[in-house]
Amino acid sequence: MDRSSSITKKTDGDENERNIVITAEQEDANNNDAGSIEKTFEGTEVPPWQKQLTLRAFVVSFVLGILFTFIVMKLNLTTGIIPSLNVSAGLLGFFFVKTWSKFLEKSGLLKQPFTRQENTVIQTCVVATSGIAFSGGFGSYLFGMSEVIAKQSTEANDSQNVKNPSLSWMIGFLFVVSFLGLFSVVPLRKIMIIDFKLIYPSGTATAHLINSFHTPQGAKLAKKQVRTLGKFFSFSFVWAFFQWFFTATESCGFNNFPTFGLKAYDNRFYFDFSATYVGVGMICPYLINVSLLIGSVLSWGIMWPLIKERKGDWYSSELKSDSLHGLQGYKVFIAIAMILGDGLYNFIKVLAHTLYGLYNQFQEKNKRPDLSQSSNTPALSYDDKKRTQLFLKDQIPTWIAVSSYIAIAVISSATLPHIFRPLKWYYIIVIYIFAPALAFCNAYGCGLTDWSLASTYGKLAIFVIGAWAGGSHGGVLAGLAACGVMMNIVSTASDLTQDFKTGYMTLASPRSMFVSQIIGTAMGCVISPCVFWLFYKAFPDIGLSGSQYKAPYALVYRNMAILGVEGFSALPDHCLTLCYVFFIAAVVINGVRDAVGVKWARFIPLPMAMAIPFYLGGYFTIDMCVGSLILFVWEKIDKAKADAFGPAVASGLICGDGIWALPNSVLALAGVKAPICMKFLSRKDNARVDAFLGS
Amino acid sequence: MDRSSSITKKTDGDENERNIVITAEQEDANNNDAGSIEKTFEGTEVPPWQKQLTLRAFVVSFVLGILFTFIVMKLNLTTGIIPSLNVSAGLLGFFFVKTWSKFLEKSGLLKQPFTRQENTVIQTCVVATSGIAFSGGFGSYLFGMSEVIAKQSTEANDSQNVKNPSLSWMIGFLFVVSFLGLFSVVPLRKIMIIDFKLIYPSGTATAHLINSFHTPQGAKLAKKQVRTLGKFFSFSFVWAFFQWFFTATESCGFNNFPTFGLKAYDNRFYFDFSATYVGVGMICPYLINVSLLIGSVLSWGIMWPLIKERKGDWYSSELKSDSLHGLQGYKVFIAIAMILGDGLYNFIKVLAHTLYGLYNQFQEKNKRPDLSQSSNTPALSYDDKKRTQLFLKDQIPTWIAVSSYIAIAVISSATLPHIFRPLKWYYIIVIYIFAPALAFCNAYGCGLTDWSLASTYGKLAIFVIGAWAGGSHGGVLAGLAACGVMMNIVSTASDLTQDFKTGYMTLASPRSMFVSQIIGTAMGCVISPCVFWLFYKAFPDIGLSGSQYKAPYALVYRNMAILGVEGFSALPDHCLTLCYVFFIAAVVINGVRDAVGVKWARFIPLPMAMAIPFYLGGYFTIDMCVGSLILFVWEKIDKAKADAFGPAVASGLICGDGIWALPNSVLALAGVKAPICMKFLSRKDNARVDAFLGS
Repeated sequence: MDRSSSITKKTDGDENERNIVITAEQEDANNNDAGSIEKTFEGTEVPPWQKQLTLRAFVVSFVLGILFTFIVMKLNLTTGIIPSLNVSAGLLGFFFVKTWSKFLEKSGLLKQPFTRQENTVIQTCVVATSGIAFSGGFGSYLFGMSEVIAKQSTEANDSQNVKNPSLSWMIGFLFVVSFLGLFSVVPLRKIMIIDFKLIYPSGTATAHLINSFHTPQGAKLAKKQVRTLGKFFSFSFVWAFFQWFFTATESCGFNNFPTFGLKAYDNRFYFDFSATYVGVGMICPYLINVSLLIGSVLSWGIMWPLIKERKGDWYSSELKSDSLHGLQGYKVFIAIAMILGDGLYNFIKVLAHTLYGLYNQFQEKNKRPDLSQSSNTPALSYDDKKRTQLFLKDQIPTWIAVSSYIAIAVISSATLPHIFRPLKWYYIIVIYIFAPALAFCNAYGCGLTDWSLASTYGKLAIFVIGAWAGGSHGGVLAGLAACGVMMNIVSTASDLTQDFKTGYMTLASPRSMFVSQIIGTAMGCVISPCVFWLFYKAFPDIGLSGSQYKAPYALVYRNMAILGVEGFSALPDHCLTLCYVFFIAAVVINGVRDAVGVKWARFIPLPMAMAIPFYLGGYFTIDMCVGSLILFVWEKIDKAKADAFGPAVASGLICGDGIWALPNSVLALAGVKAPICMKFLSRKDNARVDAFLGS
Repeated sequence: MDRSSSITKKTDGDENERNIVITAEQEDANNNDAGSIEKTFEGTEVPPWQKQLTLRAFVVSFVLGILFTFIVMKLNLTTGIIPSLNVSAGLLGFFFVKTWSKFLEKSGLLKQPFTRQENTVIQTCVVATSGIAFSGGFGSYLFGMSEVIAKQSTEANDSQNVKNPSLSWMIGFLFVVSFLGLFSVVPLRKIMIIDFKLIYPSGTATAHLINSFHTPQGAKLAKKQVRTLGKFFSFSFVWAFFQWFFTATESCGFNNFPTFGLKAYDNRFYFDFSATYVGVGMICPYLINVSLLIGSVLSWGIMWPLIKERKGDWYSSELKSDSLHGLQGYKVFIAIAMILGDGLYNFIKVLAHTLYGLYNQFQEKNKRPDLSQSSNTPALSYDDKKRTQLFLKDQIPTWIAVSSYIAIAVISSATLPHIFRPLKWYYIIVIYIFAPALAFCNAYGCGLTDWSLASTYGKLAIFVIGAWAGGSHGGVLAGLAACGVMMNIVSTASDLTQDFKTGYMTLASPRSMFVSQIIGTAMGCVISPCVFWLFYKAFPDIGLSGSQYKAPYALVYRNMAILGVEGFSALPDHCLTLCYVFFIAAVVINGVRDAVGVKWARFIPLPMAMAIPFYLGGYFTIDMCVGSLILFVWEKIDKAKADAFGPAVASGLICGDGIWALPNSVLALAGVKAPICMKFLSRKDNARVDAFLGS
């Protein structure tokens, strides 16, 4: 059926989309030492890419796509926090097609056996479809343009800054912006997967899951691994289920467990008992986990408390805690600066290497571009060889990608100003010039850490385009529309690369994956607006605070856009200076890493990983470090076993927690709320509460 | 140094002293299969009993005794809940003497090496000393006699029902009542330990701990076991420490985790994350755990909810929830009836067997009394043979025990009426006639389940003697004094037998243990009143509600005595009938168990175990069943390993949690309170609290 790629949790707000992955160097440990996965599949034929794209796959994808779009949309409009439904999609797809094909097999009508490649295709397609429900901004930028939301904000609610939803323009808008990300990242595919060996933890976990579903009979170790995976899958699922009962509201439950005390919790240092992130920490290299931890300590442990002391001096003390004019501004913009610094450094480095490689290739045919980290990789394992071979077989010609990108960019530059009047065509051209770089950054960062930062880049677009257009020329609407353009490209890019990783590990052809993603995206561009329209029409009080579907982030995005039109001057004091410092620091650290060589680079943290906790907080880094620690201890006790079963345990933990998202969402849709709130109160508050409840 | 026998938690209130032990039949599994413990000690000489009693042992015991008495007293006067400090005593004693003897060894002055027998002697002595601080009733019956407490109650605060504390009469009182328990149980020692093979889980765990301290070098399995014990000891300790942070008040924290929902929690069904009870569950036979679970389901799952529906009919609906005139009355008295039924059945059975055995012995010398459960035990293991041999070597002659008992009973009957005027000498004689039976019941029950029910028997005395004396003749004071007499005997009896079990397993001579307990008790009779006197003089508002030392259970006990003088008629409707039913049921079930033989008896629950959760609730049975389940699964996976390391894991869990009581008490004494309250609220309450805290 399908596979389940990223465990991305997406939020429209400050806590952006979090995938959660990891990295590069120890990837091959998953394959080399654990006994070759591909050897167990040796007897199984890999169908050609056209055969991987079956009709039944797309029928199943369509049905599942609608189901998941409903779920994502509901979550968009209620809390704005969207857990990954990818694993659910993978599993459901598998059972769907498996049942179907078993039924057909019995009736003698089965023409083609169900392969893991087909499963990957389905999963990719479903993720693409339901991904649009998030990146379409129905709970954020798109809905933020509407009159309902505008009225709740005091400024800029004139007609030129307002655009009410309508089925026709939404579908049109999505069609012209959603495909760009796909094409922008195609040329960089090989660099991310083969040369950089980026991990894409969710993609890897999904691949392990799909591989385990399709493992041929008789493979003893694989069977054991599957059983281990199953065990931890069940544990993780049951654990997530158990946690649910104690989460009556957002602020309750194990997710808010002040493991290191309330003070640390306020600074977002706590172990949140998330099986997902513990699993991710087990898949990630130690360096990433340590970088994340250093980043959290640096930001939430040192910088933010220090800046907080400047309250009233550096920024007004009367601001709300989530105002971008205040502390929140430092968090968001410094993180963006560092991510941009790292991303652009790597982008330029890769570009330089690529050009150099192409030049060499031109000189002496067939010489492979010598890329940074991979320059002295050891001999490839059997798995890697086989996978690389198949991955490189079905190429998507670069000229197709480039020309498609340009063609769509032109169409979209011509179309969008008609939809959003204040969004001039040259704004769009500028976005499309920078977008591939940012798409690369996001895909790279996601591969490294599993966090997709699409909404961060979207916010960047809000500020840049908003400020450029200016408040008097409909800058708010222009900013929100630009956010949509940017988010769609960047989000799709990271999702697709994540999928490519899964495809790489399941021997699915990149070409079939690409086609599947295009079809999925196209379905999403129609399904998502329709589902939103249904909600919009069915619930007249949608978007109003206090209603069931209050779409909290729509107002947040609109307010950011209003802030944006005031330009950089709206940032709190010294924020811009700090941004410069961290941008340069990111570049310098990367430079040093490359200069000292692999031996010492292992001890220098990665700026990209460090920046992620800057405004999310350290809680998920704690989870991941726990995962790292478990693996470390396990390796000390029994290296062989840890290598063989570590990835299975990690995948089980990630997938079990992931599949819980489905029943959880169904419960939310059915309006079933958890019965108990596990609350953490300071002793003082507790005394007050006891007195209150007692009276 | 000392050993750490029972993990008894003692409460003065409804939740009586809870030891937590278990049972018999699988005891030898601990020794047989796990590789013989005594074989590893084969090279170590067991010193004669006089040599086990060293001066340094008693000096250390005295110092530790004072320390622990302070802790227990403080807890008596603040919450009334006293966790077991025995394990702490064991460990502290070990490190104390070990350091001392190492120091002496270096300076060449060490005359006698530190043996595990000496360690057991110290632990026994410290437990005896600090035990008096609990059984002396300074937070319950004894203080309940005072004017301070009497004034807070509406009835019976005339002068004949009041007796203010004074150093002299308290010491005298303790001296005449505290030694009776020791002598009463001596004759039954062999029956409990050798013939019945009762487990005394805490005693067993302590013995494992002490054995592990003294394991000679080179014993490979023993070393591994020690390492396992150490690992789980640390885990359990760290876990208890971690829990502490979230327990700002009684009702917070993991101890109140509504694992199965709030409704189940209200009926005291929850897993309370207590490592102690999980460990106990691992040591207990499955039958005990299942009996406990059946008891909880029968009482809290079926009976109490049904009786609750009769509220307003069977008992007044205006009563407080803890009133013995209401639902609480059913819980307490039905449990007492069932415990008495089981205890008396076994007492009579044992008596009959003993008399029959003695008769046979008289007929044909040396024939060993053939006792129920042990009648068809398999051949003894090496450990058991060695232990039995040493245990039977140093006998305490029965005539000494009997004549001492009678002598002290006479002295005490003559003395006590001078201290407490309403307590007539014939009341005391009656108590002393029935006391051995009840002491036996308690020692037997404690051996079976680790719960010492001393305060239950104490309450029985309050009611019986109170009703007999009558309110107009100072029945309240008489009842409270009778409670003291009864509790001291019954509590000491179970503690001593628990210690004998430890001694049995560490090859300590019963004679040295007995001497140590006598010396410890004597020290306690002086230390405890002095420490109480210090508190009494230092804090003038002691005993007043709202003050720091409010001694909550003192008032509770006084109120029970006031209820008691009204006689059985004060019980709620049908309560007495139900008591008869359960008393008879306990006798019948035991009869059936004996009639059907061992093969079927394994499937018939033990009434004693069933009765314990009747008014405590099912939470600890859940813990124990979890322990059982862990062991069961472990045995399925790897029987040999489970047998070898199960007891070590269980002991580690019990002891780690136990030693935490020491730092916990120190924190309480220092007035350090936990910073966080982990609270569990229903969704509705949570919404109210959020609104309250938000405003």
